[in-house]
Amino acid sequence: MKLTVVGSIAIDNVQTPIEKRENILGGSATFAAYAASFFVPVQMVGVVGEDWLPEYTKIFQDRNINVEGIEVEKNGKTFRWSGKYLDNMNDRETLDTQLNVLGNFKPKLPESSRQTKYLFLGNGAPSTGLEALNQIHDADLVVADTMDLWINIAREELNNLISRIDGLVLNDSEAKQFTGEINTLAAGRKILELGLKFVVVKKGEHGAIFLSRNGLYVVPAFPTEKVVDPTGAGDSFAGAMFAYIVAQNGKLDETTIKNALVYGTLIASFCVEGFSIENLQKIDNAAIESRLNQFRKIVSF
Amino acid sequence: MKLTVVGSIAIDNVQTPIEKRENILGGSATFAAYAASFFVPVQMVGVVGEDWLPEYTKIFQDRNINVEGIEVEKNGKTFRWSGKYLDNMNDRETLDTQLNVLGNFKPKLPESSRQTKYLFLGNGAPSTGLEALNQIHDADLVVADTMDLWINIAREELNNLISRIDGLVLNDSEAKQFTGEINTLAAGRKILELGLKFVVVKKGEHGAIFLSRNGLYVVPAFPTEKVVDPTGAGDSFAGAMFAYIVAQNGKLDETTIKNALVYGTLIASFCVEGFSIENLQKIDNAAIESRLNQFRKIVSF
Repeated sequence: MKLTVVGSIAIDNVQTPIEKRENILGGSATFAAYAASFFVPVQMVGVVGEDWLPEYTKIFQDRNINVEGIEVEKNGKTFRWSGKYLDNMNDRETLDTQLNVLGNFKPKLPESSRQTKYLFLGNGAPSTGLEALNQIHDADLVVADTMDLWINIAREELNNLISRIDGLVLNDSEAKQFTGEINTLAAGRKILELGLKFVVVKKGEHGAIFLSRNGLYVVPAFPTEKVVDPTGAGDSFAGAMFAYIVAQNGKLDETTIKNALVYGTLIASFCVEGFSIENLQKIDNAAIESRLNQFRKIVSF
Repeated sequence: MKLTVVGSIAIDNVQTPIEKRENILGGSATFAAYAASFFVPVQMVGVVGEDWLPEYTKIFQDRNINVEGIEVEKNGKTFRWSGKYLDNMNDRETLDTQLNVLGNFKPKLPESSRQTKYLFLGNGAPSTGLEALNQIHDADLVVADTMDLWINIAREELNNLISRIDGLVLNDSEAKQFTGEINTLAAGRKILELGLKFVVVKKGEHGAIFLSRNGLYVVPAFPTEKVVDPTGAGDSFAGAMFAYIVAQNGKLDETTIKNALVYGTLIASFCVEGFSIENLQKIDNAAIESRLNQFRKIVSF
C-alpha cells in the first residue's frame, strides 16, 4: 500500500511567545506526508519555487518519501506563510501570506501516483483537490483536510469535492461554521450526511472525534507541557491517521479506526514539541510505540 | 463507607436558547450529593430558607440521601441563582444572584457526619469548607471543588483550604488563572505542588485531566448531542468521581482513579441531558452501566 499526499509546501516564519524562527519547512503536504511516512510509503505532490533548497528535498528523501511529484517552478517563489502564536499558544495571527507559485498550482501526479489506491488531499484550495482527483484512475479511499478559508470563499467547490471523497477532516469550529450547528457531534453528523464514509472533527489540544454511519470514536490529545510550535499539528494528525488506515489496507473496522486516531494523536503530539517537522525528524518507531504505551496508560480504561 | 457532601443548595432560574425554567433545584451540594448517591450512602450538609419545599427534600430522600444536615433557616430565603446560556450552550451569563441564607452559612455537621472518613466540599466560599473541616474528627480523604470567584476574592482562604485537603477539582481556565500558567497540564502540576494528593482539571465538553505525583490520566467527555442544561455538570462530575473512590475505600490506584473519572464523566453526561437533576432522577445503575459500555467502545483502545 502506498499513499499519495497532495497539498501545500511552504516556507514559514513562525513566532511564538518564546522564540522566532525563519525559513522553516511548512505546508499541509509537508506535515501530512512526513507524518504518514512512519506508516506507509508516501508519494508527495506539490509545487515549490526557485528559492527551494536541495536540503529541503533531502529531508523528505531521508524518510523515503517519493518526491517525484514535487514540481519546481523556476519562475516564482515558494508559498510563504508568516504567523504569530498568542500567549495561550493556541490562537494565532497570520502576519503575512504570499501564495507565490501555489497561486496557480495545478497538481501533476506522476504516472505512479495516478494508480494510487489511497489519496490524501492536504488542506488547500478544493479546486486543487478536484484537479488531483481527476488524474486518479481508481482510488479505494480518498481523504481531504480542509479549513475555514475554503468554507468562506470556495464553498461550492468544497461541496463538489466532498461529493467525490470518502473522508473529511476539519476543525470543530469549522464543522460548526460549515453546518450552522452549535454542537460538535451534531455538526459532524450533518457533514457525514453529505455522503461521506467518515468525518473526523479535530479539536486541537482537546483531541478529535471520528464519525461514521455506525461508528463514533473519541480520542483526547496526548497531554504535553512541551508545546513549542503548534503549526502542522492538524496536518500531521490527519496524515498519520489516514496512513495508519492505509497500512491496514484501507480497512475501516473499529480496531483500525481507533488505532489510527491514536497514532494520529501521537504523531501530532511529537510535531508540536518542535518547530516545523524538526521533532518528527528526531523520532523513530520505537519512540512512537513507547508513547503509545504511555498514552494507553493515560487514557484506556 | 459514607460520604459527607457540604455545599450550596439553590433554587435556580435557567434560560437556554431553547427553554426557560424557574424554581428548579440547583447548587453545588445538590448536584454533587445526588451524583454521589449512585455509588455510596451520602450525607448532605447545607442551608435553605423558608421558601424550601418538602418536595425538594423528598427528592434527596428518594435516593436515600441523609438530609439531617440540611438546615432550614426560617428567617430568610434559599440561595437563588438565575443564569442564561448563550447560543453555544457553553458560555453563560449570570443574570441574578441572591445569596440569602447562604450569605451567613456556617455548616453544622450532624454528629454522624463529624465521624466521616470522606468529605466533599462542593464549590462554595473557602471559609465554609474550612468551617466544615474544623468539625471533622479525622477524615481519610477530603476533596474540594472551587471556582474563579474564590480565586479572585478569597485567595488566602482558598490557599488555607488547599493546605488542609487531599484533592482539588477546578476548571482549566481557573487552573490557569490560579497559577498564571498557559498550559493546562503545567497549571495542574503547579497546583499539585501546593501539597495536594491529586488535582482534577475539568475541561467541560472536552473532559478532564487527573494529576497526582505519579499519575496522569485523561478522560474525554461522553459525546452527546442532547445538551439541555449544562448547569451542575462540573458538580455532578466531581461528586460522582469522588464517590466512586470512596466506594473503593478511598483507594487511589490506577484502576480506581480511571474508573472514577469515567463514572464522573458519565454522570455529568446524564446531568446535562436535562434541567437541574431531572435527568439524574430518571436513571438507574443499569443505565449507567449501559453507558459505561458505550463509552468504553467509544474511547478505550
